[in-house]
Amino acid sequence: MLLLHLSDVDEAGWAEKLRAVLAPYPVVVRTDKFDPADIRYIFVWKPTADAFDGLSNLKAVLSMGAGVDALLRHPKLPDAPIVRFVDDDLSQRMSDYVVAHVAMHQRLYSRFHADQQARRWTQLYPPAATTVTVGIMGMGILGQDAVKRLLPLGYDLRGWSRSPKYIEGVAGFSGPEQFDAFLSGTDILVNLLPLTPDTAGILNRDTFSKLRRNGLTDGPVIINVARGGHQKEADIAAALKDGTLAAASLDVFEVEPLPDDSPLWAIENCYITPHIAAISSQSTGIDYFSNIIIEHEAGKPLTNVVDRSRGY
Amino acid sequence: MLLLHLSDVDEAGWAEKLRAVLAPYPVVVRTDKFDPADIRYIFVWKPTADAFDGLSNLKAVLSMGAGVDALLRHPKLPDAPIVRFVDDDLSQRMSDYVVAHVAMHQRLYSRFHADQQARRWTQLYPPAATTVTVGIMGMGILGQDAVKRLLPLGYDLRGWSRSPKYIEGVAGFSGPEQFDAFLSGTDILVNLLPLTPDTAGILNRDTFSKLRRNGLTDGPVIINVARGGHQKEADIAAALKDGTLAAASLDVFEVEPLPDDSPLWAIENCYITPHIAAISSQSTGIDYFSNIIIEHEAGKPLTNVVDRSRGY
Repeated sequence: MLLLHLSDVDEAGWAEKLRAVLAPYPVVVRTDKFDPADIRYIFVWKPTADAFDGLSNLKAVLSMGAGVDALLRHPKLPDAPIVRFVDDDLSQRMSDYVVAHVAMHQRLYSRFHADQQARRWTQLYPPAATTVTVGIMGMGILGQDAVKRLLPLGYDLRGWSRSPKYIEGVAGFSGPEQFDAFLSGTDILVNLLPLTPDTAGILNRDTFSKLRRNGLTDGPVIINVARGGHQKEADIAAALKDGTLAAASLDVFEVEPLPDDSPLWAIENCYITPHIAAISSQSTGIDYFSNIIIEHEAGKPLTNVVDRSRGY
Repeated sequence: MLLLHLSDVDEAGWAEKLRAVLAPYPVVVRTDKFDPADIRYIFVWKPTADAFDGLSNLKAVLSMGAGVDALLRHPKLPDAPIVRFVDDDLSQRMSDYVVAHVAMHQRLYSRFHADQQARRWTQLYPPAATTVTVGIMGMGILGQDAVKRLLPLGYDLRGWSRSPKYIEGVAGFSGPEQFDAFLSGTDILVNLLPLTPDTAGILNRDTFSKLRRNGLTDGPVIINVARGGHQKEADIAAALKDGTLAAASLDVFEVEPLPDDSPLWAIENCYITPHIAAISSQSTGIDYFSNIIIEHEAGKPLTNVVDRSRGY
C-alpha cells in the first residue's frame, strides 16, 4: 500500500493519477482509513512531525523533491531507503535558468541597462563566450545537464564537486583543497550543490573575494539556484555594493518568501526570482514513482537512493 | 597592389599587420603615393564618394563588414566582385547576443524585474525551452550559427529565408507566401536578415500582429540584431505599449546613435544595446583577407562573393 503525504500541493490530483496508473495496487491519503502497518511506501512533500508514526513495514520513502536536505532533518525519519525525484523536465528548467542568467551576465546586462536609463550610447563590446569561464559547484545530475547546455555555447567550463569527477569538456576540481584554485579561474559562479552541513553558507564574502576579477568586464558574478541556506545574504549585499561582485542572480533565499525589508530587493545588480527556477512536473512524477513501486514490488532494486552519510 | 580605405577604424594598424603577412605583396593606404591603375584589391570600410576613382584594374572589393547593404548603395561602386567578411568570431558573438536575449525572454525577465521593483513574491513558472518556438529570419551563416547554439538548449526552432533551405532540426519556411505561416507559430522572432529592398521595414506592426500569442506567458517578443533599416520604431513602441509585443531586444536603430528623444529609451520592456552585438575581429580579418589575396593571386577563385541581384 502507498500512502501520499503531500503538503502545499495538489495531493488529491497526485492520488487520483497514481491510483489510475498503479491499479490494482492500493493508494491512500492521510484522511483515508488504513492500517499504518500496511503502508510499504510513503510519498512525501513537507512531511509533518507525525508523518511516519506507526509505519512499521516501510520499504521506502519517496521524496517529491530533488533536494532532501529538509527531509533529512525530520526528527522521526525512519530507517527505510529514501528515493529522491530525478526529473528530466526539472533538469531542463533548471538549465534554462542557468543559461539565461549566465548569458545575460556575460553580455554585461547590468551595464547596458544602466546606460539605457541614462540614455547613454557607449559602445562597449562584451567578451565572447569563449573567453568567459563558468564555474559550476555541484556536478550531479543538474550540474551535468547545465554542462550539456553551456558547452555548445562556447563557454570555458570548470566544475567543483565533493569527490573527483571526469566530465568531458569540463576542468575538474574537488574537495576543500582544490576550492580556491577552482574559484581563482571562475568568472561566473553557478551553485547547484546539495545543501549539507559542509555546503551551508558556502556563498560568502571569502568565496566571492577569491573569484577571478579580470575576466568579465565589471567583475565576477554569482548565480544561486540551489538553496537559500547556501548563501550569506548580508555578504552578498555588501559584495554587490563594494564591487567584489558585479551582479548576483538569486532564485533562493535564507527566508522564503524573501522578507519585504530585505536589502536585496533594492540592489540594482541583484536579480531576484521567487524560487521558480524549476518545479517538479506532476506528469513526470507519476511515471517516475509508479515505475519505482512497480519495479520494486517485482523484486528489482531501488534507484536514486539517498546516501545519508553524504546528505544527498 | 592592395589599397586600404578604412574610415572610423584603426587603418594604420590594419595596414601594418597586412603588410607583415602579405610581404612582399605591396599594401598602401590613401595617403601613400601610388598609381591607381596598380590597385588590384581595395579593402573598404565606409568608403568615401571618391573611394573607387581611377581604380581601372580592380580584381575585387574586399568588405570589412559582413553586411554590404551600405556598400551596395555607393554611387560609384565598380563592377568588380565584392568579397564580404565571414568571421567565425563575429558569428560567435552574434549568437552570444541571440542566446542571451532569447533565454532571458523565455524566462520572463520583464515580469520578474517588475515584481522585484514592487517587492512582489509571485511564483510563476516560466515555460520550459522545449515548449517555446524561436523563429529565425535569415538562414545564412549567422542564422545557422544561432541554430547550432539554440538547438542543444531544447528550443523548438523554425527558420524563414528567401529560398528554401534544409537545416537539421529546423522547420523551414521560405518566400513571402510562407511568411505568415512562419510567424503564426513563432514566440520569439530573431532577425538576422541582410538588409535589402525586400527586407527593409519587415519588423512592423503587421508582422508583430501575426506572431503566436499563447506560447510565451506575456506574449511574443522580437530581437533585432541585423540592421536598423529592418525595423519601424514607431510600430515597435506602439506594439510594446499595447501588448502586441511583450518585449523587444534591439541592438540596431533607424538612426544611430539612437537619438536622445527616441521614445524607445524609456520603454521598460524595450532592451536597448548600442550596436555592440558583434564586431569584426582584426586578427581574424588579417588572416581572412590575406588568404583571399594570396589564393586569388595564385589563380584560385574568390570565396564569399556577394550576389548583387540578391543584395547579399
